[in-house]
Amino acid sequence: MDAAKKFLAFLFLLSLLSISMAAPSRKYRARKPCKSMVFYFHDIIYNGKNAKNATSAIVGAPSWGNRTILAGQSHFGDLVVFDDPITLDNNLHSTPVGRAQGFYIYDKKDIFTAWLGFSFVFNSTEHKGSLNFAGADPLMNKTRDISVIGGTGDFFMARGVATLMTDSFEGEVYFRLRTDIKLYECW
Amino acid sequence: MDAAKKFLAFLFLLSLLSISMAAPSRKYRARKPCKSMVFYFHDIIYNGKNAKNATSAIVGAPSWGNRTILAGQSHFGDLVVFDDPITLDNNLHSTPVGRAQGFYIYDKKDIFTAWLGFSFVFNSTEHKGSLNFAGADPLMNKTRDISVIGGTGDFFMARGVATLMTDSFEGEVYFRLRTDIKLYECW
Amino acid sequence: MDAAKKFLAFLFLLSLLSISMAAPSRKYRARKPCKSMVFYFHDIIYNGKNAKNATSAIVGAPSWGNRTILAGQSHFGDLVVFDDPITLDNNLHSTPVGRAQGFYIYDKKDIFTAWLGFSFVFNSTEHKGSLNFAGADPLMNKTRDISVIGGTGDFFMARGVATLMTDSFEGEVYFRLRTDIKLYECW
Repeated sequence: MDAAKKFLAFLFLLSLLSISMAAPSRKYRARKPCKSMVFYFHDIIYNGKNAKNATSAIVGAPSWGNRTILAGQSHFGDLVVFDDPITLDNNLHSTPVGRAQGFYIYDKKDIFTAWLGFSFVFNSTEHKGSLNFAGADPLMNKTRDISVIGGTGDFFMARGVATLMTDSFEGEVYFRLRTDIKLYECW
Repeated sequence: MDAAKKFLAFLFLLSLLSISMAAPSRKYRARKPCKSMVFYFHDIIYNGKNAKNATSAIVGAPSWGNRTILAGQSHFGDLVVFDDPITLDNNLHSTPVGRAQGFYIYDKKDIFTAWLGFSFVFNSTEHKGSLNFAGADPLMNKTRDISVIGGTGDFFMARGVATLMTDSFEGEVYFRLRTDIKLYECW
Repeated sequence: MDAAKKFLAFLFLLSLLSISMAAPSRKYRARKPCKSMVFYFHDIIYNGKNAKNATSAIVGAPSWGNRTILAGQSHFGDLVVFDDPITLDNNLHSTPVGRAQGFYIYDKKDIFTAWLGFSFVFNSTEHKGSLNFAGADPLMNKTRDISVIGGTGDFFMARGVATLMTDSFEGEVYFRLRTDIKLYECW
């Protein structure tokens, strides 16, 4: 019977193990990120004079605007395409770890607000792959959250939330966004 | 042996329990929403005369079009940016619970079809946060489904499907979309 | 004791079973697709002369460009809307199984790179429904991965990764993309 008892004990432990290994329903999943990262990206908007340094350009504008100068009425209707360097600190001249590529559209007449669709395309020793983002950016708020809607390579199938903060802006030519990325689905 | 038998029975129940507690593979997950909501949003397109009331504007157009009047050929190529009020009923003048912000592009020459990228940005006592959407909108169909690709705040990490219905349209100036949102991933 | 032993063996198997049925935490989920598909889509860009055959058109451009001819500097800033046929093989004239609808924006000055937001809208005996995509397309690379961010109908709530390959291109008028879709979340 001793062997049988030991076996029973083993089975019992096994049962407990199987219970604890069962993935909980996602509704009650803890809001603890499986990965946290902070990056900065730097946007220099083409204004007719800075072709050499510019990293973005207006490519759509409302009928009352043009594609060289951001429109009045909170830039409402301006569509901007960008290819911005991503850095680990807030220095524009640090070695980039990748590029932030995509677009934003100013979408409100009375205050500054934009809609963003873009990717972080990483190309560093630490990270290869991409993260894809989408969401509303009410950019006068100190912080605003957008969605990480997918990823590839090192970030295969990732999902999460990115918190944007305007770290600096210089008139209508330069801004720098701090991006706190928290992934809640990692594969 | 009685104790052992009881223990065996207990183990047996435990095993069954552990099976039933195991989260089913998502392939077989029931298609039951964890949250259902209905909203309306209202789009008034700028047409050169309604600057005061307009909530959206053409900001991109094909070479044969312009940015004041929607183009021929099913508006193919027109890119429209919007900041539309969201209401709980179909009345444009009801107190908005948030704003629908983003863009649509008419993308077909022979029938009306659009591609949508936008967010619901909520700001009411009931909801704070945002839902992000993307998808094709074959708008001549009575209903069409797009994806809820993410969310923030109250809708942290949400995913789901939104069914759009054109609830009203008045020529080329106003339309109202009923949006039935069903979230299947809630955190 | 024989019966008890048999019962123990049964319990043991049951325990193993319950372990194997427990969905693993997604962090450790095997990277095995629940669905794999290959499609081709065909893009014929409007160039001022091919209105009849064109499936896409430039609708946004930088201030130094126009909407009839793709801009210099790697087409940086050109926003293209498309409604392209999807086929099962690489023949433009095969019966389409659906349409690829959405947009791409060339987003880099020194090499060809684009950002994509689009849907596959299926309408065949085999597939009804849509898949939604977003991501960076560094199109000079042999293969590049974008995200499947959602789906509807037969592809309800799908997520995955799509690998794009330029299967053919003819100057600045035609290109064909092979799309290897691997879904890792199927409902």
